[in-house]
Amino acid sequence: MKSALCFLIAAKRSEIAGLRQLALTSALLDAAGHLVHALQRERGLSNLYLASLGQRWAAERDAQVAQSEALQAQVLDSLDRLDTEAAPSGSRARLFGRIAYALQGLSALPRLRERVQTQTWNAARATAAYIRLISALLAVVFEAADSAWDPDISRRLVALFNFLQGKEFAGQERATGSAQFAAGRTDPQGQQRLLHLIESQERCLQVFADFASDALRAAWQLTQRPEQMALLERQRRILCTTAAGHLLDAGQSQAWFDACSARIDAMKTVEDALTAELLALCRQRLQVAEQELTDFEQLQRSVSPQPSAGTDFFEDGGSAHSPPMGLTHPSQVFGPQVERSILELVREQAQRLQSMGDELDTVRASLTERKTVERAKGLLMAHRHLSEDEAHKTMRQMAMNQNRRLVEVAEAVLAMAEVLPQRGR
Amino acid sequence: MKSALCFLIAAKRSEIAGLRQLALTSALLDAAGHLVHALQRERGLSNLYLASLGQRWAAERDAQVAQSEALQAQVLDSLDRLDTEAAPSGSRARLFGRIAYALQGLSALPRLRERVQTQTWNAARATAAYIRLISALLAVVFEAADSAWDPDISRRLVALFNFLQGKEFAGQERATGSAQFAAGRTDPQGQQRLLHLIESQERCLQVFADFASDALRAAWQLTQRPEQMALLERQRRILCTTAAGHLLDAGQSQAWFDACSARIDAMKTVEDALTAELLALCRQRLQVAEQELTDFEQLQRSVSPQPSAGTDFFEDGGSAHSPPMGLTHPSQVFGPQVERSILELVREQAQRLQSMGDELDTVRASLTERKTVERAKGLLMAHRHLSEDEAHKTMRQMAMNQNRRLVEVAEAVLAMAEVLPQRGR
Repeated sequence: MKSALCFLIAAKRSEIAGLRQLALTSALLDAAGHLVHALQRERGLSNLYLASLGQRWAAERDAQVAQSEALQAQVLDSLDRLDTEAAPSGSRARLFGRIAYALQGLSALPRLRERVQTQTWNAARATAAYIRLISALLAVVFEAADSAWDPDISRRLVALFNFLQGKEFAGQERATGSAQFAAGRTDPQGQQRLLHLIESQERCLQVFADFASDALRAAWQLTQRPEQMALLERQRRILCTTAAGHLLDAGQSQAWFDACSARIDAMKTVEDALTAELLALCRQRLQVAEQELTDFEQLQRSVSPQPSAGTDFFEDGGSAHSPPMGLTHPSQVFGPQVERSILELVREQAQRLQSMGDELDTVRASLTERKTVERAKGLLMAHRHLSEDEAHKTMRQMAMNQNRRLVEVAEAVLAMAEVLPQRGR
Repeated sequence: MKSALCFLIAAKRSEIAGLRQLALTSALLDAAGHLVHALQRERGLSNLYLASLGQRWAAERDAQVAQSEALQAQVLDSLDRLDTEAAPSGSRARLFGRIAYALQGLSALPRLRERVQTQTWNAARATAAYIRLISALLAVVFEAADSAWDPDISRRLVALFNFLQGKEFAGQERATGSAQFAAGRTDPQGQQRLLHLIESQERCLQVFADFASDALRAAWQLTQRPEQMALLERQRRILCTTAAGHLLDAGQSQAWFDACSARIDAMKTVEDALTAELLALCRQRLQVAEQELTDFEQLQRSVSPQPSAGTDFFEDGGSAHSPPMGLTHPSQVFGPQVERSILELVREQAQRLQSMGDELDTVRASLTERKTVERAKGLLMAHRHLSEDEAHKTMRQMAMNQNRRLVEVAEAVLAMAEVLPQRGR
């Protein structure tokens, strides 16, 4: 008969396998992050090139394409090294599905570049295509967050994931503003989009700040240099308040691109630190879990095959009365003490699992909230034929009017949708 | 280089592995459900035996203990057949941890029975011990629900899980009422507890009804025979309204036990149908996934090693314009059509994964809500030195006063707790 200790050992082995997989995934996240960063810059330069009607930025764009290609090769290399055969499980299925989708996007990238090069597509269309590709790559990262099991690791993943999303909004802001400056005039849709992007990135960065370690939160604040922010905010004001259709100083497009890029490049250093911290935490957890496994196995060899009598299972506060035990040195415990130490161990691990489950629920709830808001937004867009910005604004207004949280409004929207007829799609 | 199709195949293999594991777990759930049912009955009979001061019910209790022991052997057998080595992953770790804890409880069971036999413990203490053991067994079931990945399967698990919890409350109601009838008098604590148990089971059964299939919901309603319910409700009224300390007709204890048992036994048939439905769904999903895997592999052999150009990745509504394809017969598609069909496949699977993710979030959210309420209750118990019933009542009152959902009040309680000093424990 399999003993409780036998299942504890199986639990520990499973935990170790999960941590190893996550460590492997971290390497992929790192490579994907660099590629996303390069593609964000490529998108901005493509917009400058297109909005200047191919008159400027061609060389800068070519150089950036070459860099993106090199980084793409590294992502493909990481994917090749990803073990798709080992330990298949339900949670891996979604990750692999996302990777398949992102790979399709990457293979379509040369055609996209050609359309930019030949000015077949305008800035808005090129931006939308780059957004779709980057979002497919980010989806790979986000899927890893969903399948993570340790709450500390999950929390870091949520921080990383919101930071990446915030950085992507900052990248979209750079691209949208670049198109306007380079075209030499504002347009009302672009202005509304800019406001939405600024607000969205601030929301993501707030979640990042809530979930990040103190060190990383401090590192992030250090990168936000006041003189840089003052310059950026000034240009934001010009972009957003110049009356629609009025002329902008096209000479400012370089300054805008550089100010945004300085900030986004600084964000990349924080992102790298986040990834490094995640990997270090993963390795540290792995080391602890491996030591515990060794201890458990040693304990298993030292006990009789008879199952423990489990005398204390129904007693409250048993642990308070039991003698202090060297759980890390179970080989020094013999006889009835061994039985007792197994019970303690099982109880301790069960409590740990329980509190990890609780923590994880909290982390998951925050992810779920974000997804609920996104889904409600999508529904409003389909039902009411609203743009993303308008849908977001509508829900925010509802939340303010009803004095409720955004997620509560989103839930109400989703609940209503079940009784509404499908329109639009 | 690994292609998108290669990752699609890996995703499908992972999905199949997850489904196989769940099918194995279902067998364990079935065995655990039978044991829980027997232990629930044993708990009721133990209370009748203890409250009658050992004068009656000894033979019935002995027979039930023998039956419980036989069913326990089957659970242990299921556990032995559970593959603890294959496909270790983070989500398995918690399941194994729960099993280890439940095994400790089972090994302590003989001692509990001895204490009942010798009347060392009173009915209240014995009930608490049985509740702890049953809850450890149910925790095994609930852990399986958390790691399920397919939303339809998850939904069935949530239905099963709430039904099991509702049945457990019904079992606790039987035990609590049995102790009062057999003792021949009411006590205020027992009465308050009964009201709480009746309300709690109705809440669980409501969630069951929300998540169950139409067939099972109908089956459940059929088991609620009006003449049986009328009898039960009459006895509930007597138990709950007879003034505290007043005499009860001890002769009614048999009738009470039988009325409760008839209902709980009927619940067991619904539970069995739920488990059977879950297993059938699991097998059906497995069959579909295996067929899809065969198709994907056939498709892989028919394409060139060159990656697909993915021309349509950035086009909207590509699927509407593409010719209808025999995706289930990919071998009949050749040349550029194969490329096209892979893109369709990846897109289709990505959409499926996305909508599954959304569904799963909804299911998870409902689980999270329940856990949030339980955690808040635990906090109130610790901070305010309240009983479970009092804590529940307090939160319900707050919800009514503030016109908010119970889960919102629970969230507020948990948020407050962070700023309150720890008392009690």
